[in-house]
Amino acid sequence: MEIIEGGICAVNTVMASGTRKGKYGVAVILNKGSTAAAVFTSNKIRAAPVVLTEKVVSDGKISAIVANSGNANCFTGQGGMENACEMAKKVAEILKINSSDVAVASTGIIGRKMPMDIINDLIGQSIEKLENSPEASKAAAKAIMTTDTFFKEISVQTELMDGTVIKIGGINKGSGMIAPNMGTMLCFIATDAKASPEELQNALKKAVDKSFNMVVVDGDESTNDTVLLMAGEGLGQIDENFQEALDFVCIELAKMMVKDGEGATKYMEITVKGAASYEDAKDAARAITSSTLVKTALFGADPNWGRIVAAVGYSGAEMDESMVDMSFKSDSGTVEIVKKGSIMAPEGSKELQKAEKIMENNEIKIIVDLNIGKYSATAYGCDLSYDYVKINSEYST
Amino acid sequence: MEIIEGGICAVNTVMASGTRKGKYGVAVILNKGSTAAAVFTSNKIRAAPVVLTEKVVSDGKISAIVANSGNANCFTGQGGMENACEMAKKVAEILKINSSDVAVASTGIIGRKMPMDIINDLIGQSIEKLENSPEASKAAAKAIMTTDTFFKEISVQTELMDGTVIKIGGINKGSGMIAPNMGTMLCFIATDAKASPEELQNALKKAVDKSFNMVVVDGDESTNDTVLLMAGEGLGQIDENFQEALDFVCIELAKMMVKDGEGATKYMEITVKGAASYEDAKDAARAITSSTLVKTALFGADPNWGRIVAAVGYSGAEMDESMVDMSFKSDSGTVEIVKKGSIMAPEGSKELQKAEKIMENNEIKIIVDLNIGKYSATAYGCDLSYDYVKINSEYST
Repeated sequence: MEIIEGGICAVNTVMASGTRKGKYGVAVILNKGSTAAAVFTSNKIRAAPVVLTEKVVSDGKISAIVANSGNANCFTGQGGMENACEMAKKVAEILKINSSDVAVASTGIIGRKMPMDIINDLIGQSIEKLENSPEASKAAAKAIMTTDTFFKEISVQTELMDGTVIKIGGINKGSGMIAPNMGTMLCFIATDAKASPEELQNALKKAVDKSFNMVVVDGDESTNDTVLLMAGEGLGQIDENFQEALDFVCIELAKMMVKDGEGATKYMEITVKGAASYEDAKDAARAITSSTLVKTALFGADPNWGRIVAAVGYSGAEMDESMVDMSFKSDSGTVEIVKKGSIMAPEGSKELQKAEKIMENNEIKIIVDLNIGKYSATAYGCDLSYDYVKINSEYST
Repeated sequence: MEIIEGGICAVNTVMASGTRKGKYGVAVILNKGSTAAAVFTSNKIRAAPVVLTEKVVSDGKISAIVANSGNANCFTGQGGMENACEMAKKVAEILKINSSDVAVASTGIIGRKMPMDIINDLIGQSIEKLENSPEASKAAAKAIMTTDTFFKEISVQTELMDGTVIKIGGINKGSGMIAPNMGTMLCFIATDAKASPEELQNALKKAVDKSFNMVVVDGDESTNDTVLLMAGEGLGQIDENFQEALDFVCIELAKMMVKDGEGATKYMEITVKGAASYEDAKDAARAITSSTLVKTALFGADPNWGRIVAAVGYSGAEMDESMVDMSFKSDSGTVEIVKKGSIMAPEGSKELQKAEKIMENNEIKIIVDLNIGKYSATAYGCDLSYDYVKINSEYST
């Protein structure tokens, strides 16, 4: 597997484009007759485009995606659904495809009527610019940004087990990172490999569990989260190598999202090993990444490992205090903080000084070994800074 | 029921005292031969004093409490338990009571050895000052403060159904409020009413569920949280009137904790009504209070009700978007934001201006009516400010 250029347009059949006007943006992605799989938010409040797109994808086929930023089209009543349908219809008319094959996604503020005149204009302009090029992928990725500070895309090429070389490319947006409970995540991925809708759904679910679900805390999902995967007529049937490449694509996109966390200044990767079950490992890793006290400590470069231990404690994971190992790692080195429940870096020690130095880096790895089982999981997170508060206290005004 | 003076010393049999030295403090509460009930953290990592006190209280009797601030005595290995026992023994020796009747509680940083020389000195000094007076209650409340900015106590007097007048008094500490996952809450309450250990435990559990558990998010508990209730030989047997008074005491202490949230500038009371079950009402109210996006919006006086709706959506509570009512309330008035799922305060409206004005107050009430059932619950919360980040990014350094 190797990283290649092109973003979502690395896949030959994909045409993309994006246009912005003020706080609004529209991206269009055309990939006629593609097999489709999707994962949506589990929030009981679901935006109109989520409800619509779930229906569109239910037959396992889509031909295009239209996505807008600036308005979530959520909690907008019956008019919201009409607007989402209007977006699909507009795209379908111009591109001469069925509107029931157009997926719609929105991100932005909740509870405001969609400015359909602006959105329709942007759709028209975007469709005129559709093309298969690295620039087109970037334009689409930029069009769906909200509080994102950089656009996000990745593309890879890998050899399937039968020797066929296939590509996977994706773009995404998302940055509300404390528990990204409203920082909507939109992700669109395409591949030229072949799969049935069920196989594709299965592969996507697996990849999402290891990536986006390891930065998104259970239950804290936005009303609009949408991940869409489109497959082609097929150079080769998807297999383990495809899964590995898809996992990589999703993890890299998830990491970009974390690194672009609202107000984030630091990135952390938390691995919990030696857990009694995979669920335990996942829960513990996510509890650490989600703890506001761990996040503020990270911001302050404070090796406050007690908060990490406490987060494991309330995660529900099976554990024995006297078995726990913990170490911190960064470009500045590695330090063992706790070994079999004993503190290796007490106050005033050289180890604690080393830990402080490690915490000053921008990318920190924290490894917790529960030493009671064989399961492990990694979660991705960022710090909680003054700027997070600033961004989120002023968002809707 | 009326509020009276005296804090925990409003109960005649209670003697209290507190002493501080730098970041350390010790409070001692003496109430010989009292019936005892307790509620502890559900965190799997439990501080040594929690483990010890659970054992001490298991026979339903205690005679004294010793509590220290400045060190949590948590994740301190076998030495931690020895230190907790030493604290109980020291108190027992001087007061000539059984050390198995002395409850111990600690709050402060995790993973550091207890400075037993300082703690023992403070215990000695505190015991010399023990007395039954309003000043003694205040001194005890002050001794257990950590990042608290004010001491917390309350006392009430009420008439039981048989005409007996009884008193309940309490002190507490706690201020880590975003999800107070490590801002340890310690609360000590005494009453001169009579009850069996089982009756007392039952009454305490009920009161804690309506108060401290409505500010503490499930699973986000500190390693040291402890609520202790002591009853006397008894002026009268506890009954519904007692429960009402105990609920009031716990809710008032919980509210003080919220108002003293780390860096908090605003207080919010969230009532969810019309829920299909009490659990649903509780979960929804707590989800709103815990949402960092609601908290930052509150800090910015931003009537961003979409974040509130989304929090209800991911709380797991049964709901129908088209049935939801929402209103905001403060000293500046009341405004209906959502009525049966329709937005009553759209962009640019007078209602939205009114909502903005209401949000500028320091105390805000938010009422969400799901309109599908008859259950309701109230949760208490505060905003998330720059100062929260400041306090928590510098805590252990």
